[in-house]
Amino acid sequence: MLIHNIGILAGIQPEGQLRLEGTEQGCTGILENAWLSITDGRITGFGPMATCPCHSDHSEESLLDARGGMLMPGFCDSHTHVVYAGSRDGEFLDKINGLSYEEIAARGGGILNSSDLLHRTSEEELYRESMPRVEEMLGKGTVALEIKSGYGLNPEDELKMLRVIRRIGQSVPAAVKSTFLGAHAVGRGYTHEDYVRAVMEMMPEAAQLADFVDVFCDEGFFTVEDTAHILEAARGLLRPKIHANELAVSGGVQVGVQYGALSVDHLERTGEAEIQALQGSATMPTMLPGSSFFLGLPYGKAREFLDAGLGIALASDYNPGSSPSGDMRFVMALGCIRMRLTPVEAFNAVTLNGAYAMGLSREYGSITVGKRAGLILTDPGWDLTKIAYQYQTPFIRRVFL
Amino acid sequence: MLIHNIGILAGIQPEGQLRLEGTEQGCTGILENAWLSITDGRITGFGPMATCPCHSDHSEESLLDARGGMLMPGFCDSHTHVVYAGSRDGEFLDKINGLSYEEIAARGGGILNSSDLLHRTSEEELYRESMPRVEEMLGKGTVALEIKSGYGLNPEDELKMLRVIRRIGQSVPAAVKSTFLGAHAVGRGYTHEDYVRAVMEMMPEAAQLADFVDVFCDEGFFTVEDTAHILEAARGLLRPKIHANELAVSGGVQVGVQYGALSVDHLERTGEAEIQALQGSATMPTMLPGSSFFLGLPYGKAREFLDAGLGIALASDYNPGSSPSGDMRFVMALGCIRMRLTPVEAFNAVTLNGAYAMGLSREYGSITVGKRAGLILTDPGWDLTKIAYQYQTPFIRRVFL
Repeated sequence: MLIHNIGILAGIQPEGQLRLEGTEQGCTGILENAWLSITDGRITGFGPMATCPCHSDHSEESLLDARGGMLMPGFCDSHTHVVYAGSRDGEFLDKINGLSYEEIAARGGGILNSSDLLHRTSEEELYRESMPRVEEMLGKGTVALEIKSGYGLNPEDELKMLRVIRRIGQSVPAAVKSTFLGAHAVGRGYTHEDYVRAVMEMMPEAAQLADFVDVFCDEGFFTVEDTAHILEAARGLLRPKIHANELAVSGGVQVGVQYGALSVDHLERTGEAEIQALQGSATMPTMLPGSSFFLGLPYGKAREFLDAGLGIALASDYNPGSSPSGDMRFVMALGCIRMRLTPVEAFNAVTLNGAYAMGLSREYGSITVGKRAGLILTDPGWDLTKIAYQYQTPFIRRVFL
Repeated sequence: MLIHNIGILAGIQPEGQLRLEGTEQGCTGILENAWLSITDGRITGFGPMATCPCHSDHSEESLLDARGGMLMPGFCDSHTHVVYAGSRDGEFLDKINGLSYEEIAARGGGILNSSDLLHRTSEEELYRESMPRVEEMLGKGTVALEIKSGYGLNPEDELKMLRVIRRIGQSVPAAVKSTFLGAHAVGRGYTHEDYVRAVMEMMPEAAQLADFVDVFCDEGFFTVEDTAHILEAARGLLRPKIHANELAVSGGVQVGVQYGALSVDHLERTGEAEIQALQGSATMPTMLPGSSFFLGLPYGKAREFLDAGLGIALASDYNPGSSPSGDMRFVMALGCIRMRLTPVEAFNAVTLNGAYAMGLSREYGSITVGKRAGLILTDPGWDLTKIAYQYQTPFIRRVFL
């Protein structure tokens, strides 16, 4: 396929680099009045119209006039919990009505109740419930996503979730990475210590299905010591991505960096120590503004991280309790409106740096010859600033997967 | 037309009442498995399927099987500035980069620069630029809206705006109400006093075109005394709707109530005195969560108003500087997510009470026989809670205008 009459928002990826950091994150590459070719799902060339091979052997079907629309890399959503059973809209109502977390749990809300419901839901049904959510995300421009387990909370149900995630990856034309989040909460019927041990014992089997391991290292969930035990068990099997510093300054960032985590995620509560721990590491700080928005939590201090020379990724955290949306355009807009990122910084956070946080930045996250053609074609007249500013106006003409 | 196999979310409008207040705002009427008929743009009947006249003389084209979708009144957006020239996305970038209001104004931002640009824009071009925004709003379920002048700031350009608003009203199948907001800021070349006098002098001519008069009664804009002078000049010509208490406890609520305002709008900064002033009045307190979201201002204290027995409306405030979105579903969701309204309270705020704030609640805002058929048909499976909770997932199958 050959697309012509486009603006290309290529992003940048300096030679040999897999992510953007500090001031780099505010840079991008733009080519006006250009063409781009796709063969077998990969970008095979692009350039200014003067060099366009449009007149060669392209049939009419394989030639697309973009009429001045902009082509940009699709969104890379590196943190979701999009596989779950049922909905938690009743709990949403309870929260509005001012019920406490304990009252909500007693009425059937919270992670443990999601886990009970998942236990009663067949693997087939879980797949059928989750797929429309994934398909909606793809329609909104997500071309690569990560999905976590963590509503199983026992060996049987955690593996059921991981199989469903694998099946989703096999069913959709997007890249799907899978994360074993056995340590999302202590499963019913376990003591805290027993459950940590159970998660460690699940590791070899989980590693057959998952790409990464995650631990909810935060106040009231798992300690730094628990996390270290679990990551020891994962050593050589699964690279960590850690839930850290959502509810408290938990030490999650530091233990994540210590174990070579690909990302540490949430980061609503951080100070100078977390920034120092991340400097010089291979770990991508990942912030989740959708859950800050939905829960009324503070937003991650994205500007401080960039000013300290770090890169950041933004992800949707799509999940039924704290972020019931996988809309990455809105995540990008929140990055600008509420976190004071420039549109280019937010764009790089939801593309190349998001891809990095899934180990996919050789394949996704920028318009580069040889990468997968996971692309968004906008309607004419759109640029990054307008995408963030007119944050509820549809802008996508077509998604290439 | 006859629609069958629907759930009807009718809303409620007790006999003889034009709005909902206090606990009433938390009530609605729902009819499962129902039908509804529309003739000449009005609702002519509805009821349970057992009473459906489906088998009578309806041709196939005039019979719509809603397959279990929900029919609800369309959104009534009582506060917008959707007629403007150009965009202010450059100013959005300046704000992110931390520029002061003065620096932004010097670079071409702010109301006065919108006014300069509008001055250079022809009436035809202003109409052409504004219509796609209105059309997008209608596609998202708005069936009645108010549009303000206020980027003219001299007699010639204010009247130009009012003519454009009238032309939009004549072009679209939605109800459009027009508000003369000459007193949005002091026009260039005027002293403060001269401009207040000029606005008063514009009144008779503006009254030929507009339905309402508005004054930005707030710190740094117009004082309570200015507002009183302007509303005296409007007496017998135009009923007030007042911009009040956005930037400070301005006295705008009280002067609005004193002059019988149909609504007082914004209300980010209010205390007990404002609630007392509103009690027993015919004035609808109207909050604009879209601008709180976009600017990071506090949200209006909607719960306090309801708990005090008042009703509230929510509107989009669609404008280029502080709320670049006319998406009333997101406004409703913000009402729930950020202001802790229940979905029913937020729904009544964006339908019947919004209609009241435009003098349209005899015609719009609920499903009532005889009212205009400005309706939203949802996809199957949606209810009000889900509309607010899954706040970015498309839910509209069709809008009836």
